[in-house]
Amino acid sequence: MENNTSNTTSLQVRVLYVDTDKMGVVHHAAYLRWFEASRAKYMRLRGANYAAVEEIGIQLPVVEAHLTYHKPARYDDVLTIRAWVGDLGRLQVKFDYKISMGEDILVAGYTRHASINLDGRLTRLPSKVSEALAAPEKETGEAMV
Amino acid sequence: MENNTSNTTSLQVRVLYVDTDKMGVVHHAAYLRWFEASRAKYMRLRGANYAAVEEIGIQLPVVEAHLTYHKPARYDDVLTIRAWVGDLGRLQVKFDYKISMGEDILVAGYTRHASINLDGRLTRLPSKVSEALAAPEKETGEAMV
Amino acid sequence: MENNTSNTTSLQVRVLYVDTDKMGVVHHAAYLRWFEASRAKYMRLRGANYAAVEEIGIQLPVVEAHLTYHKPARYDDVLTIRAWVGDLGRLQVKFDYKISMGEDILVAGYTRHASINLDGRLTRLPSKVSEALAAPEKETGEAMV
Amino acid sequence: MENNTSNTTSLQVRVLYVDTDKMGVVHHAAYLRWFEASRAKYMRLRGANYAAVEEIGIQLPVVEAHLTYHKPARYDDVLTIRAWVGDLGRLQVKFDYKISMGEDILVAGYTRHASINLDGRLTRLPSKVSEALAAPEKETGEAMV
Repeated sequence: MENNTSNTTSLQVRVLYVDTDKMGVVHHAAYLRWFEASRAKYMRLRGANYAAVEEIGIQLPVVEAHLTYHKPARYDDVLTIRAWVGDLGRLQVKFDYKISMGEDILVAGYTRHASINLDGRLTRLPSKVSEALAAPEKETGEAMV
Repeated sequence: MENNTSNTTSLQVRVLYVDTDKMGVVHHAAYLRWFEASRAKYMRLRGANYAAVEEIGIQLPVVEAHLTYHKPARYDDVLTIRAWVGDLGRLQVKFDYKISMGEDILVAGYTRHASINLDGRLTRLPSKVSEALAAPEKETGEAMV
Repeated sequence: MENNTSNTTSLQVRVLYVDTDKMGVVHHAAYLRWFEASRAKYMRLRGANYAAVEEIGIQLPVVEAHLTYHKPARYDDVLTIRAWVGDLGRLQVKFDYKISMGEDILVAGYTRHASINLDGRLTRLPSKVSEALAAPEKETGEAMV
Repeated sequence: MENNTSNTTSLQVRVLYVDTDKMGVVHHAAYLRWFEASRAKYMRLRGANYAAVEEIGIQLPVVEAHLTYHKPARYDDVLTIRAWVGDLGRLQVKFDYKISMGEDILVAGYTRHASINLDGRLTRLPSKVSEALAAPEKETGEAMV
């Protein structure tokens, strides 16, 4: 779960009211949304847009998720989410995440994804997808959405 | 938008932490979830379970939603949602809702749904569905989920 | 509810998996999140960051919301949300929204907000806030989060 | 993470449209809501309603969450969530969960909660709360909300 690799993708988000709860901080479930947003961006910037992956008949459902909450995020905070591939197998891929604000790591975690086909059966990751997952971020000039 | 009809269905829910926001009250978007839960129960108790409606090729996407917020709900409150059909046409149906706690109406609103087929085209509501929507609640003894 | 004013603020978002439902389109409740994000940006770019408004003791809870759904948005779509002030009173403000993709308007709506103080009582909008709400967007060079 | 203890609390929920995603199954983040609902019920049925715990100045934020997804849940499925205390310390408590439908375990997981006071500092769980967390379910006849 190291992150001193250069092969990460970063995303910034601003905390909305809907993400907070009555404790005045971000609700623990909200971070999974940002994990997903950063994972999608990671894939998109390597030519393996998840929508395109689905079009070739591969789905990558989450089979395991883990989150540790170190410090709370608050309304209007601007958070940085970094995502990278922590483990890449023939039938699965694990993404690691760190969510930080300034120097502080707020949340860390991972999601593990099985590679399945349209019948829902485990299937080998196509080499095009594997290669993209292992590739460095492309310079695309794409809008930061 | 009258509700002094006997043909309503009621559902009780308890407010969770995830429904609240940093103002200490239920976030305004959370009520749409409970509208949906009460609408589904209304249909289920009249023999038009929405999952079964979809199986005969009809979908009822929301084409309009309106909510007025009168008083806030808070964490752990037990809310009563009443749903009824406010308008039933050949191509659409409107559900009305009142969310209350004790004597207080907290939120009122409606959702309007188009009847579409699997190609996404407007299509006449099957008579089985129309009749169920207009029917009184059946005594089913079904668990209150 | 005209929008041919220049005094609007735009935000782009990309649809996530979590925003979709089994119909394959964006769930109707998800749009309220984007209304909020664009409203927050509107205020921020006029010097009335909502977090700062709360710090001077003013809250603007949603007292009414309305949405019309014209066309569905889908996974990975990049949506543009435009927000503007449709009505500004002494005790309330109404925001209008249009969510579009390319030339298509997908969703339109508004939210009405009461101005309340920390005791939850209606209170006059401070002139600093009213003026900011009516002001044109500032050139801030701020990151598009 | 054994669950052959009798000291569990069960909750039933019905899957809503808003819980599903375009894969046609329940989105992985939705289960955290049901973990929370079952945890709240567990505490409530032992006289340690979480709202009451907060009133005596104790909060139990989630500091770790883990979920494994074995089989998908689908729209309109009626799920059973069982929650129990897997570990109870002086400064923290861990809840375990199993979500099942019929004989099938769909999702398992846990959440770990720190005991903090209103200043956000770790603080010993009051004995009243610890005892309630370890107690068997009370017969309350309370509505299943």
